[in-house]
Amino acid sequence: MKAGARLPRVVIVGGGFAGLNAAQALSGAPAEVTLIDRRNFHLFQPLLYQVATAGLSPADIASPLRHVLRKQKNCRVVLAEPMGVDLDKRRVKFEEGVCIEYDWLVLAAGATHSYFGHDEWEEIAPGLKTVEDATEIRRRILLAFESAEYEGSEEARRAALTFAIVGGGATGVEMAGSIMEIAAKTVAQDFRNIDTKTTRVILFDGNDRLLPAFSPESSARAKRTLEKMGVEVRLKAFVTNVTRNGIYVGEEFIAARSVLWAAGVRANPIGASLGVPLEKSGQVKVEADLTVPGQSRVFVVGDMASVTSKGKPVPGVAPAAIQMGRYVGRLIASEISAEARPGSAADASPAARQSFVYWDKGSLATIGKAKAVAEIAGFRFAGYFAWLIWSLVHIMFLISFRNRLIVMFNWAWGWFFFSKSARLITGESNMRIDEVKANESVIGREVAKF
Amino acid sequence: MKAGARLPRVVIVGGGFAGLNAAQALSGAPAEVTLIDRRNFHLFQPLLYQVATAGLSPADIASPLRHVLRKQKNCRVVLAEPMGVDLDKRRVKFEEGVCIEYDWLVLAAGATHSYFGHDEWEEIAPGLKTVEDATEIRRRILLAFESAEYEGSEEARRAALTFAIVGGGATGVEMAGSIMEIAAKTVAQDFRNIDTKTTRVILFDGNDRLLPAFSPESSARAKRTLEKMGVEVRLKAFVTNVTRNGIYVGEEFIAARSVLWAAGVRANPIGASLGVPLEKSGQVKVEADLTVPGQSRVFVVGDMASVTSKGKPVPGVAPAAIQMGRYVGRLIASEISAEARPGSAADASPAARQSFVYWDKGSLATIGKAKAVAEIAGFRFAGYFAWLIWSLVHIMFLISFRNRLIVMFNWAWGWFFFSKSARLITGESNMRIDEVKANESVIGREVAKF
Repeated sequence: MKAGARLPRVVIVGGGFAGLNAAQALSGAPAEVTLIDRRNFHLFQPLLYQVATAGLSPADIASPLRHVLRKQKNCRVVLAEPMGVDLDKRRVKFEEGVCIEYDWLVLAAGATHSYFGHDEWEEIAPGLKTVEDATEIRRRILLAFESAEYEGSEEARRAALTFAIVGGGATGVEMAGSIMEIAAKTVAQDFRNIDTKTTRVILFDGNDRLLPAFSPESSARAKRTLEKMGVEVRLKAFVTNVTRNGIYVGEEFIAARSVLWAAGVRANPIGASLGVPLEKSGQVKVEADLTVPGQSRVFVVGDMASVTSKGKPVPGVAPAAIQMGRYVGRLIASEISAEARPGSAADASPAARQSFVYWDKGSLATIGKAKAVAEIAGFRFAGYFAWLIWSLVHIMFLISFRNRLIVMFNWAWGWFFFSKSARLITGESNMRIDEVKANESVIGREVAKF
Repeated sequence: MKAGARLPRVVIVGGGFAGLNAAQALSGAPAEVTLIDRRNFHLFQPLLYQVATAGLSPADIASPLRHVLRKQKNCRVVLAEPMGVDLDKRRVKFEEGVCIEYDWLVLAAGATHSYFGHDEWEEIAPGLKTVEDATEIRRRILLAFESAEYEGSEEARRAALTFAIVGGGATGVEMAGSIMEIAAKTVAQDFRNIDTKTTRVILFDGNDRLLPAFSPESSARAKRTLEKMGVEVRLKAFVTNVTRNGIYVGEEFIAARSVLWAAGVRANPIGASLGVPLEKSGQVKVEADLTVPGQSRVFVVGDMASVTSKGKPVPGVAPAAIQMGRYVGRLIASEISAEARPGSAADASPAARQSFVYWDKGSLATIGKAKAVAEIAGFRFAGYFAWLIWSLVHIMFLISFRNRLIVMFNWAWGWFFFSKSARLITGESNMRIDEVKANESVIGREVAKF
């Protein structure tokens, strides 16, 4: 590299686990690193369901990206949403002809849920990927009890108190357990006309077991635990339609005012702009070094990438995203440093690269208070001990020390009081009187029977 | 009261300080109490500016109304927004012909800011009354720095880093101080292209001093403190127009991308449905016992009420609302109990009622870290000691013990690290690339000069 020449430009798209770890692994490297995200914060997604179930506030699990990276002087943060990549011109494109040039590119823009070709269900049955999703789901859960309180008919009241959750992975299991706890404990004293303990939570999955990432024994254990809490678990159940009044499973209709979605994977559409082979889910089929085929300096990491390690597909979980991000960050840093050394070859040979290897540290899923399943290094745990491991691991991986303290405090508080502190119904569309289906006779009757 | 007759129905509209305290004062009274609010939570408004300036999360200063009142078995909560009152039929009306009947009515629906006949300014210059207002203002403050980071011209950069705040009461003073602290301390290390310390915060008021509720000495002190922090204070300044690009003060135009509103009072329009004399601001002119003229069982309390005590108008502050709510709640409880006693007269004489007396406990306003003004029982404090009093009083009056702990923790953290933990830009309308006014040359230039 000639003296005075500009530093190589590394552009990272996405500030989730994969992108942030890639940026941090480039700390100190002789490069201009640009991290692009449409949000100004890194979100700790594994705890997002606790925001949706009123246990935590959004800020408790979010860290401003600029703040996290403030001391890494070779890295800047750009708040924007890329539209696509031009591999020939080495550019990431934004709206209105705006673009940014790169020498090295890391795509880490994540994935969302998939509605299996029925995107029209999304409005009725929101998924859980963003902070806005979480506060919207929280709004719906809390409004369900509010509307049940003033329903005229027993039938309508049952529908308002029925929650259908589609998808039996970790998010679905965690949501089902949390909603049951809210109904049975948190708000049990709050209402005058309804018994919130009669709430029905039904968890659907097309598979023959919950938590497919776990062993069949842990799956069975999770199912038993949920059922003991009162959750109905329906396996091999295929959702055929979702309406505002309920959910169709095969031919059967179940009246449920709240349907929540936690199934399927659909990768960020920016992968499609590469013009390379994709999985059905939109994930980019990358090489063993996580590069796009034929592009030795363009990487795809995290939930956007489809890759195998030791013959098995790498799962779309936080630890895999962290490991991919670090692997790519270090790889780029080392090749840039090698190039910068006087007398080095103009281009390091990609053939010399070691393949990405996923180190499976185990699986964890929480179900409720002191209830979880864990599988670590071939050992299976369940119940209180698994829950303790789950809690410690999640606290440990939270980005900032402050968030660790706040989350611990909220959990301790919840442990002792079964309280959920963030029970706010916010957003523009608060319940209107017609949503409650209240009418003069109903409110009149309620006053009469008060 | 005959055996088996129904209990008298007390309807309270609004779950703020006045309404909630009225409901709680009726605890144990032989009545059916209904508290109506369009939100499911009580909001601790004096700290709302800290949500707007990213210091606290909404949940930290909110308590679900049902939870607060869960043990008060004679009280139910209805989540709905009343449209008006029919005094003849003794009904509170909702949308679609729905209504609720009352024997006693307490209106406590609060007030918002007034744009002095220019409601079109509201969209450009949001006020601070709801949780949504607070997260919107937070979004704008944080986006201002983001857009400044990539502005093409120095002029545009200056406009993005200029904050105009209209209204020099407690809210305006607190917002001005907080925004200056965010710029000078919290985000000072976070940006690469701008020096956030060059941020301009300008506080406008039509009066000849800030904080009119205080003595002229405290007003002068607050002004000096703000100016020392770098805030420009412009008194006797009348805003003549507000546009997306800035603010007109008299003939002068000041380029400012962020204009925030903290001036004026406009009472909830439900007061107008009573058909009784109102103030210009929409407040109901009530009798000395806080009743609507000619209606011995209809009360208006809190920011909606216009009343004098000891010859002075009662101010629209939290302590006054709390005292009014308690006064009315106790008054109703005692008259209902008297009526319920065998052999009592059918109607207690309103003439026997003692007038409401406002006990002015003093005034407090915070300006920044260890900076505040306080006036208590004729004593004036300023600086660190006033700030300490302010902090203790606000912690003490927070509704739940949990919120007290969380807010204390957040304040302690902010004290040591000058950190603002809730720096999330949320909401549907995230910054689009055209909002940043970024263009190819700009981002190109930034990369070049990186």
